[in-house]
Amino acid sequence: MNYPKAFEDLINNLKKLPGIGPRSAERMAYQIIEMNNDSIQELANCLSTIKENIHRCKICGNICNEDICEICNSELRDSSLLCVVQSSKDLYALDKSNEYKGLYHVLNGLISPINGIGPEDLNIDSLIKRIEEGNIKEVIIATNPTADGELTALYLSKLLSKYDILVTRIAYGLPVGANIDYADEFTLIRALEGRRKI
Amino acid sequence: MNYPKAFEDLINNLKKLPGIGPRSAERMAYQIIEMNNDSIQELANCLSTIKENIHRCKICGNICNEDICEICNSELRDSSLLCVVQSSKDLYALDKSNEYKGLYHVLNGLISPINGIGPEDLNIDSLIKRIEEGNIKEVIIATNPTADGELTALYLSKLLSKYDILVTRIAYGLPVGANIDYADEFTLIRALEGRRKI
Repeated sequence: MNYPKAFEDLINNLKKLPGIGPRSAERMAYQIIEMNNDSIQELANCLSTIKENIHRCKICGNICNEDICEICNSELRDSSLLCVVQSSKDLYALDKSNEYKGLYHVLNGLISPINGIGPEDLNIDSLIKRIEEGNIKEVIIATNPTADGELTALYLSKLLSKYDILVTRIAYGLPVGANIDYADEFTLIRALEGRRKI
Repeated sequence: MNYPKAFEDLINNLKKLPGIGPRSAERMAYQIIEMNNDSIQELANCLSTIKENIHRCKICGNICNEDICEICNSELRDSSLLCVVQSSKDLYALDKSNEYKGLYHVLNGLISPINGIGPEDLNIDSLIKRIEEGNIKEVIIATNPTADGELTALYLSKLLSKYDILVTRIAYGLPVGANIDYADEFTLIRALEGRRKI
């Protein structure tokens, strides 16, 4: 016996959401039809308008309400420091630490030959423009320590070498609270290489 | 720093979905804004129309495309057998087993004093109507073996006792493939009580 068509359609569309498998989509669909219609409509409405309501900051590429994001607008930030990240998600994660007070630049992706993503697909032109404006003294490359993240960091460091700025990479090492015997060998090698005098 | 309003709204609405906590909602929202707009619109559309497109079968209460569901419409079903379930979800689960060839009746809920749900909130009137039509010989009560499920089964068995039909309850016992030493004592007591000659 088949599900009613509308129900099947809902399941198939829920499955397209990241991290939602066939079983979760089914369970979700059953529970959605039990929800009150106002909540469903509100969610549907949020979804259908999200792409128009979320803007990308014209300076840094972060998600924002208007043309320029809160961080780029802030006068409390150190505008000589620029931290380059893959996504807004990483930006918010770094910013939550309250340690970093500089500005950000969101690439909106990483160079990934396997997925056919090249530098021209990323938000790099505006990065160069910001650097050429001359105010920035240091660029911290904070892409993930993965193959694509490393490749992007390498590409950027070469690209930026012709400017008179310091280009740095966030540190590798053991996560705080980790066990040495659980760490992989690459992390351990990097942690040893990056050792500091105490 | 706060998220853009539209993004915050999306997260809050995703959190209302069953089984989606704050962290999952956040992760989902980030990934949704990366999805192509057509997929998002299709999902939004499915959601906003689901309540109008899903009907409840006028006979059994199951979800369906039209007024009467596939099962109630089928001539291959044994119309003297009626299996009472809590939800369409349970109906589909039972029907997948291909063992049962009778009809169903979906209560769309269980009696639950703690949640203020009484018999009048369930699809019981139409159950009585079906029984009074006189064709049904056996009613199998297949609500969950939980407190609310048992209470509902008890209520129904009393309600139906005045009709000249057999009222049965699905069996309790060990799930196939289970380990006796992992089973809880209530299940074991029921499994012993329900023993059969082999």
